[in-house]
Amino acid sequence: MARVTIHDIAREVNSTPSTVSKALNDHPSISAATKEMIKAAALNLNYRQNRLASSLRSGKTNIIGIIIPSSDIGFFGAVVHGIEKVARSNGYNILLFQSHETGEYEVEGVETLLQTSVDGIIASIAKDTPNLDHFYDVKKRKVPLILFDRVKDELESPSVVVDDYRGAYMATEHLIGQGYSRIAHISGPQHVKIFNDRLCGYADALRAYNLPVDDDLIQYGKTSIESGQLCAEQLMQTPRKPDAIFAAVDITALGALQRIKQLGYQMPGQVGLIGFGNESFSPYVTPSLSSVDQQPARMGEESFQLFLNAMAKKGNGQIVEEETEAPTKIILDPVLVIRESSQRKHV
Amino acid sequence: MARVTIHDIAREVNSTPSTVSKALNDHPSISAATKEMIKAAALNLNYRQNRLASSLRSGKTNIIGIIIPSSDIGFFGAVVHGIEKVARSNGYNILLFQSHETGEYEVEGVETLLQTSVDGIIASIAKDTPNLDHFYDVKKRKVPLILFDRVKDELESPSVVVDDYRGAYMATEHLIGQGYSRIAHISGPQHVKIFNDRLCGYADALRAYNLPVDDDLIQYGKTSIESGQLCAEQLMQTPRKPDAIFAAVDITALGALQRIKQLGYQMPGQVGLIGFGNESFSPYVTPSLSSVDQQPARMGEESFQLFLNAMAKKGNGQIVEEETEAPTKIILDPVLVIRESSQRKHV
Repeated sequence: MARVTIHDIAREVNSTPSTVSKALNDHPSISAATKEMIKAAALNLNYRQNRLASSLRSGKTNIIGIIIPSSDIGFFGAVVHGIEKVARSNGYNILLFQSHETGEYEVEGVETLLQTSVDGIIASIAKDTPNLDHFYDVKKRKVPLILFDRVKDELESPSVVVDDYRGAYMATEHLIGQGYSRIAHISGPQHVKIFNDRLCGYADALRAYNLPVDDDLIQYGKTSIESGQLCAEQLMQTPRKPDAIFAAVDITALGALQRIKQLGYQMPGQVGLIGFGNESFSPYVTPSLSSVDQQPARMGEESFQLFLNAMAKKGNGQIVEEETEAPTKIILDPVLVIRESSQRKHV
Repeated sequence: MARVTIHDIAREVNSTPSTVSKALNDHPSISAATKEMIKAAALNLNYRQNRLASSLRSGKTNIIGIIIPSSDIGFFGAVVHGIEKVARSNGYNILLFQSHETGEYEVEGVETLLQTSVDGIIASIAKDTPNLDHFYDVKKRKVPLILFDRVKDELESPSVVVDDYRGAYMATEHLIGQGYSRIAHISGPQHVKIFNDRLCGYADALRAYNLPVDDDLIQYGKTSIESGQLCAEQLMQTPRKPDAIFAAVDITALGALQRIKQLGYQMPGQVGLIGFGNESFSPYVTPSLSSVDQQPARMGEESFQLFLNAMAKKGNGQIVEEETEAPTKIILDPVLVIRESSQRKHV
C-alpha cells in the first residue's frame, strides 16, 4: 500500500489538507472537536507524519544519539534498551554509536551525531579517552549532553551512575557472611573511577569486619577472560591462598571461574566467587555466577528523563547548563544477585 | 588543545589557508609535491577535516546506517564489528539502529536514517516485518541498500548470506559421525527463511545417511531459552527418545542443555547437542556448546564492500540497481565449531 498522506485523511473527513496539517500539529485555530476527529482518522488510516517536514518546522529532529563503549557488553545494551523504551513513548528515535573504548572513535561518534543534528547526546565515556574536548564541543553547541555510568564530573553534565562503592561493599560483605575470610579482589585499571570505587568498597567492607586488607590478595587486571584466568592463577599461587574472590567485572570473574575449576578447586565449597555487572552469560555458566546488578534499564530511563529536563530548560530559553547550578547527578542503588558461585552450603 | 584548523597548517607550511584546503581536497591546481607536504603537516598536527563542510561540498555524509534486529544477539554485534572495521578504513562512520524484531521500529529506523542523510543502509530484516514498503522507499530514493543474513530476494538488493542449509547439513552429519542415530531438531518460525533452510539441511543429512526423518523428533520453537527448555522436555518425553539434538539457534540449544542436564542425562554421553550461530556464551557453558559459525565478521566486511560497489556505480551515473541485472548475492560457507557437547567419547 502506498504511504498515507494528509490528502488521504482530508478526503476521509471531508476537509482540506491544510486543516488536517494544522490539526495534527495542534494549531490553536482548529477546534478541539475537529482535532480529535482528524487525529482519529489519521490513526485509523495508519498515518505516519513526515518527520523531516515536521522537524524543519520545529527545528528538532526527535533523534537522540547514544555513545557507548561497546554493545558487546551486556550492561550497555541493557541501558540502551532502557533509553529506547522511554524515548519511543516520547516520540524519539535512537541512533547508536560504539566507541570501542577508544578516544579516537569517540571523537568521530560525537562529530557524526552532531552532523546528523541529533537533539541530544547520551554517552558513557570510553576507557582510553585522553581528553574531553569533543564533549566540551557538544556543550558549546548547546546540545544537551547526559552522561551515564562512565562519567566525568568536570564536564558538569547531568548524569546517572550506580553506587559502585556500595555495590562492592555489599558483594564483599556477602562473601564474609558466607564464612569466607581470605577474600581476594580482581580489580581493573585504576584511572577508571568505577574500578577504584569498587576497590575501596571491597577494602572498607573487609575493615568493617576486622579482616586484614592484604595487598597479595589484590590483582589489577584488564577487563578480559584471559586476564581473569591469569589473575586467579596468580592468586592461587600466593603462600596463603584466598578462599574467595570478588572480581570487579563479570568477564574477569568468568575467567577466574574457569581457572579455579581447572586447578581442581570446588566452587563454591573451597573457593567462592562473585562478579560485578550481572552480564547476560552469568546465569548460564557452571556454577552460575553471583554478581552485582547495576539496574541498567533504570539507568537508561533516568538518563532519558534528564535529557527531557534539559530540553525543557532549553525550550524555556534558559542556558542548558547554568554554571552556577550543580548538574543533577542520580545515584542508583546496586542490587546483589546471589547465585551458586558464592553460596557455601557448609560453612 | 583547541582544534587544529587549516589556518594552523598554512602557518606551519608558510602557505595560505586556501592552498591548504585545495591540497587536502586533491584539487588539480596543486602540485603533487605541495599536496604531499601539506598532507604530512596536517597529519603531523593531528588535523581533522571538518566533516560537515566537506560533506556539503561532496553531497556525501560518509555515514552509513545499519539496521539490525538486536545488538543483544552476538551474531549481529559481530557483523557490525566487521562492517565498522572496513568502513573506518574507508573513512565512513557507522550509526546503528535496533528494530527489536518489530516491523514498526524498523520503519522508524529507515526514516531516521534517511532523515540523517546516510550515504547508504545495510540492514538485516526483523522477524515480524509485515511488508517491505520502507525498504522500497530506500531504493526509490536511490540510497544504496545492502541486506545481510535476513534478506528478502524480492527487494532485489545486493546481499550477503551464510549457507544455512549447508550449515545445518554439516551439524547433523557431525552428530551422525559421532555415532548418534536418533537426532532431534529444535527449529524456529518457518516463515523465516533461515529456519526453514536449516530444517531442510537437517532432514536431507538424515536421508543421506539412511536415517528416518521422524516428525516426533522435530519441534518448532521460539528463539528463547525457555522455548529450548520446553522443546527439550517434550523431546525427552517421546516414546523413543532422541540421543542427540540439533538446535537451529544457540539460545534454544542453551535451554535444551539446561533441561537435559536437569533431567539427569549425561551430555554428550547420553545426549549430544549442537547449536547454530556460535554465540558468545557458547564456549563458556558446561559442557561447552558445539555450534555452526556464520562468519559474521566476514559477512560485515562483504556487506560494506557491496555498499562501496553500489556507491561507485552511483558515482558513475548508473542507476544503483538496474532492473535487468540480477543483484550480487554473496553466499558464505558456514564453519563447524566442535566443542564438548557433541563429542561422544565412547561411541
